[in-house]
Amino acid sequence: MSTPQSARLATRVERLGTETAFLVGAEAAAFAAAGNDVYPFHLGDMNLPTPENIVQASFRALRDGKTGYCPNAGIPQLREALAADVAASHRLSLSADNVVIQPGGKPTIGKFLLALMNPGDEVLYPNPGYPIYESQIEFHGGIAVPYGYVEGETDYEIDIDALRASITPRTRILVLNDLQNPLGSELSRLQREAIASLVLENDLTVLCDEAYWDIRYSGASESLASLPDMFERCVMLYTFSKKYAMTGWRLGATIGPKEIVDVIAKLNVNDESCSNHFIQYGALEGLVGDDRGPREILAILKKRRDIAVDLLNGIDGVRCFRPNATFYLFPNVTEVVERKDFRDVEELRRAVLYETGVSACSRVHFGRPLPGETQHYLRFAYSGIDAQRIEEGLGRLKAYLES
Amino acid sequence: MSTPQSARLATRVERLGTETAFLVGAEAAAFAAAGNDVYPFHLGDMNLPTPENIVQASFRALRDGKTGYCPNAGIPQLREALAADVAASHRLSLSADNVVIQPGGKPTIGKFLLALMNPGDEVLYPNPGYPIYESQIEFHGGIAVPYGYVEGETDYEIDIDALRASITPRTRILVLNDLQNPLGSELSRLQREAIASLVLENDLTVLCDEAYWDIRYSGASESLASLPDMFERCVMLYTFSKKYAMTGWRLGATIGPKEIVDVIAKLNVNDESCSNHFIQYGALEGLVGDDRGPREILAILKKRRDIAVDLLNGIDGVRCFRPNATFYLFPNVTEVVERKDFRDVEELRRAVLYETGVSACSRVHFGRPLPGETQHYLRFAYSGIDAQRIEEGLGRLKAYLES
Repeated sequence: MSTPQSARLATRVERLGTETAFLVGAEAAAFAAAGNDVYPFHLGDMNLPTPENIVQASFRALRDGKTGYCPNAGIPQLREALAADVAASHRLSLSADNVVIQPGGKPTIGKFLLALMNPGDEVLYPNPGYPIYESQIEFHGGIAVPYGYVEGETDYEIDIDALRASITPRTRILVLNDLQNPLGSELSRLQREAIASLVLENDLTVLCDEAYWDIRYSGASESLASLPDMFERCVMLYTFSKKYAMTGWRLGATIGPKEIVDVIAKLNVNDESCSNHFIQYGALEGLVGDDRGPREILAILKKRRDIAVDLLNGIDGVRCFRPNATFYLFPNVTEVVERKDFRDVEELRRAVLYETGVSACSRVHFGRPLPGETQHYLRFAYSGIDAQRIEEGLGRLKAYLES
Repeated sequence: MSTPQSARLATRVERLGTETAFLVGAEAAAFAAAGNDVYPFHLGDMNLPTPENIVQASFRALRDGKTGYCPNAGIPQLREALAADVAASHRLSLSADNVVIQPGGKPTIGKFLLALMNPGDEVLYPNPGYPIYESQIEFHGGIAVPYGYVEGETDYEIDIDALRASITPRTRILVLNDLQNPLGSELSRLQREAIASLVLENDLTVLCDEAYWDIRYSGASESLASLPDMFERCVMLYTFSKKYAMTGWRLGATIGPKEIVDVIAKLNVNDESCSNHFIQYGALEGLVGDDRGPREILAILKKRRDIAVDLLNGIDGVRCFRPNATFYLFPNVTEVVERKDFRDVEELRRAVLYETGVSACSRVHFGRPLPGETQHYLRFAYSGIDAQRIEEGLGRLKAYLES
């Protein structure tokens, strides 16, 4: 009567993906453990401290006994403060009813899909893009339909014609990650309006992943949700992770129409009851208190960006945009792959790690390559490495690639 | 082309349940807000402080910069310490590979089902029982098949004949919550062995919800997973919430065979990346440090239990077991319902709230009543109310019910 373990697993487990960037991290860790100097450009974690006022406010709440359950949707003060913050930045009218606190930014992805996607629905998602979209769509029975990007003059741009052509009567959802991971790209106003038209014409619901909204060095972030008739169709992913260097705290929110937010709060009841109670007071301090912390974080990241972009563009055969937002760079390294006769970009990536200690991800860690792709890309994150180490690592990279 | 919001929601949302005990909490809160004295016996939260050494260890880790991501499965030290703790208490051989840290005890329920249950599978679950089992089984497409309990001499007992009779060729999973919420009951050795036989005969996989393992006043907790041939078929739900009065911290673990734990760690990658990093050092201190805190918590709870059981049994028409574990009481109040001519137990519950301020849940908050049920029950939790208030509230209850 006994069944082997693997046969016990549910069928959907075969469709469960992961973040293959973690494998890059494991390779880098093994190389470092063998006594080598590693420059960690591979992971999107941050090596900056959480602002002190947030730390103190959290500890005060812990001391004050905020150690019991809080409401499933989060403490009312934080929901209200976040509604006010996002209402102002998005020119929307929001209340606490539009906000449900989550244990991180990521939980919004799975909960959004469970609340809105039926098995067999087609879901448009960015590729290259954050690999969890594809994984969660397929795990929960949807059809993941990738859309790609083209290299413009100053930025990567969604291939809107291809996106339009991939819509079918079964398409119900669009995942949009403006201020994009891994591309660092953002939509122009015209592109955003074109997407809004597609959403209306095809009656789509949209997950707006705005994880990098506040990681912006010039200009102003804009949301699809702010365009006419869009708010009722958009659910926004918010996170405290990046702006406040709180990645390991695990706190974020789902923001959208009350009817959807109510369902997602009911998912909180079922999935984890609530998010950690006392750290919500820290996040509240982040939103309403002294903002020197996040401004300093941004200044440090901007300096790193400029150093990294300049050094990458100084390497023969490397071409890198200078994104106004996110902490990612996605240089085109096609010439290098060809010049050095590498079979593919992964061979280049590994050679770079073992020859220079520079650990980056490559295009393949952000979704299955699309038909017709001919260019090669690496992805550098500069959130977890100091300016001086960026200089040193990319100096080694230049010496190796030009050798 | 526009679709109303409700039509956008996925079909599975219709099958999503909740904890109706929260509605009782809302009624109690409204009654209190109107200026009335309320005795909160309705919710399973705790009004006891988290032990100081855990608070301090967490803050030290926060101060030490444990604010970035940790591994998806949790920090290795905590996984190792928990493996050692559970190995000792369960007489099992466990390593960190058998443990994946979760943001609470509850996340194990949904993740277990997603990893092991296919749509259409029949899943046996306790009723009366924790309402999230039924909700998550149905939400993810399973068939929730309830099993009931009978009133024995000194405890509620699973109706094993009825359980056996409800097994079909489509039954794949058993949810077992020994040290039960809301009954406070536990299996005898013979009953546990009978269940192990059913599991083997029918090739079932088991979720062992052991949330109350350490909330025990006499005797020793025993697990189905410790019986021969059972470990490979059992996944244990562990939580730091109760033993260490950390309900609002949200930290727990899934413990089981490596192959299943690996899948659940991959679900962590997809769902929330990891649990809060720095509080894991607090939990580690709880496991390996001074244990005066949890011992004191247990002493307080035991005193409350004895006061509450004695007072309840002192009320004419109320019959209450004295559970050795959990912090719940589930008195039979059938005589009272009949004597006072209430339509049902919910009418009694509301009358008790509005006449005495005593806020309890009733049987109906723990699953749809089963066919043939003739007895009426209230559920009292004594985790969130001090001894003196228990005396006062149950004194009022007696005066009202005997009037």
